[in-house]
Amino acid sequence: MASASGSAAGGARRYILGVDLGGTNIVVGAMRSDGGEQHAMRSIPTRPELGADGVVERIVGLLEEVIAATMAATGATRSDFLGVGIGSPGPLDREKGLVIVTPNLGWKDFPLRDRVAAGVRLPATLDNDANCATLGEWWIGAARGAQQVVGITIGTGIGGGLILNGKLYHGANDVAGEIGHATIDSTGRRCGCGNYGCLEAYASGPAIAERAREALAGGETSIMPAMVGGDVAKITAATVYGAAKQGDELAGHVVRDTARFLGTGVANLLNIFNPEVVVLAGGVTQAGDELFEPLRAEVRRRAFKPAVDICRIVPGELEGNAGVVGAVATFAQQHGLA
Amino acid sequence: MASASGSAAGGARRYILGVDLGGTNIVVGAMRSDGGEQHAMRSIPTRPELGADGVVERIVGLLEEVIAATMAATGATRSDFLGVGIGSPGPLDREKGLVIVTPNLGWKDFPLRDRVAAGVRLPATLDNDANCATLGEWWIGAARGAQQVVGITIGTGIGGGLILNGKLYHGANDVAGEIGHATIDSTGRRCGCGNYGCLEAYASGPAIAERAREALAGGETSIMPAMVGGDVAKITAATVYGAAKQGDELAGHVVRDTARFLGTGVANLLNIFNPEVVVLAGGVTQAGDELFEPLRAEVRRRAFKPAVDICRIVPGELEGNAGVVGAVATFAQQHGLA
Repeated sequence: MASASGSAAGGARRYILGVDLGGTNIVVGAMRSDGGEQHAMRSIPTRPELGADGVVERIVGLLEEVIAATMAATGATRSDFLGVGIGSPGPLDREKGLVIVTPNLGWKDFPLRDRVAAGVRLPATLDNDANCATLGEWWIGAARGAQQVVGITIGTGIGGGLILNGKLYHGANDVAGEIGHATIDSTGRRCGCGNYGCLEAYASGPAIAERAREALAGGETSIMPAMVGGDVAKITAATVYGAAKQGDELAGHVVRDTARFLGTGVANLLNIFNPEVVVLAGGVTQAGDELFEPLRAEVRRRAFKPAVDICRIVPGELEGNAGVVGAVATFAQQHGLA
Repeated sequence: MASASGSAAGGARRYILGVDLGGTNIVVGAMRSDGGEQHAMRSIPTRPELGADGVVERIVGLLEEVIAATMAATGATRSDFLGVGIGSPGPLDREKGLVIVTPNLGWKDFPLRDRVAAGVRLPATLDNDANCATLGEWWIGAARGAQQVVGITIGTGIGGGLILNGKLYHGANDVAGEIGHATIDSTGRRCGCGNYGCLEAYASGPAIAERAREALAGGETSIMPAMVGGDVAKITAATVYGAAKQGDELAGHVVRDTARFLGTGVANLLNIFNPEVVVLAGGVTQAGDELFEPLRAEVRRRAFKPAVDICRIVPGELEGNAGVVGAVATFAQQHGLA
């Protein structure tokens, strides 16, 4: 095990820790600094009711567990761990390492980065979860090797990350990439952000489920109500994708509408950014070609041909650990390792 | 005149030539390489009917005239001219220096950059006119000193340029910045590009005039018909701005609608790019606060507060020579001088 002997000398393997902080769970893991291996992925409930100090304690405790497990598995020593990348819901002040506001955790201007760094005695970086997800796909996922990447993560909301000239782009004060809140229909659906016609109001997970319920209210037959035991409130985007794959016509219609909305948003991004790759990650990857084919067709209809010709539109490749991988990738990039 | 003695030694003044190629006119001028002075701005008709070779001859002839006039005015010698920046309608292949297509000139894959460089025996660069306009405003205009800039030029069409981290951003194959063809209303007005609901279909010069004519067709009173001698086909965006400034209610309504459309587009750009400055250039700068105030209000309603708080939305400062200044700026930036 010479290559993991713990020496700081050239050629020794080094490790970076990643923290994916969510309102429900904290996921932590370690990766080799070249992205080559993942170790000791662990998840525990966040327990926001403990307050910021309590959550930091849980993060640091889990990091120590992962460090110990990685050392046991690889023969690494503590000095082989370079630092910790932290992915957190935004908005953030990345330079100061602050979480400015998190509705799910109830924090305000909390110095998360420095508190974690002090707890585990390693340098740390902080970036928002959507940026992390995009950089993870660029580092070892579906956008490997590209210089210009748009990442779109579809879940409860729609988050985005931009990689321009091979680097995460943050804008003037870390707001850049709020792709979910670009207007596609200025007089359209009300969005949770207070605006009208945002992409998120049409194509987030809850918006997809809501449009399915609206369609069902028209009285058309569908297998979806049976899939959720008759309680249509339980329909999720996954229900819609599953029904569409089984040939359910109404679900298929909702998926094609989703593709049209997403295609409009993606076409805008092609005309503005001219990326080589657009990666769509999150639950949407389950929808498969039923969604991706009409989405690509809508983009071809709406965007400039040279921008369409150069761009791949693909589902994300990273599995459940995407958040941790992305957090590790942001640390690696900020330290010139990725 | 020691400082312009023509020596190539340190401290001597150097000059960059700029070419603004349009379908109607060719404008050429010289600037000091630090952006400090403009010399010998000259304009001649393009005369596209002469073909690409004929137009290149006219460009080179005008460059020689400007070089001679600048030498006479400053005491510079030929070796004090570093090169030529060329701004041209797109789409372009910037790396190869090709004009891929220009509907106005009828060219296809024409090696404009190298033909001009050979004609005038100086290195040359090529970039599209909207990028040039944005970089000019960044170099010596309304966006001086900013790292993240969105430039929007409103004329017959709506062009855009992006400066990210202090550099013009071109995307994967030079399409980036097509802000006029971002959708703000996916089922809205038909755009000349074939798509529906593009910003350009609402807020370009001709679209503003068209909306004014539509409003007049409703029979409301307005001073606009009298301003164009009764021929409403002659109404332009400038007519609308002028009437609004004189208190014409219908024109004021058209300007406020324009502000709302532009505000939607600009808000999207704030949420996606998070720029420090948005510069609106072209005829729109004549509209003044009648347009800019409601435009800023619409952006405040639609974009995230931190992105709004950090961003100035301002009219361009460069006058009629903006195209030449921008072309000089692109040469300067590509040669590490800006």
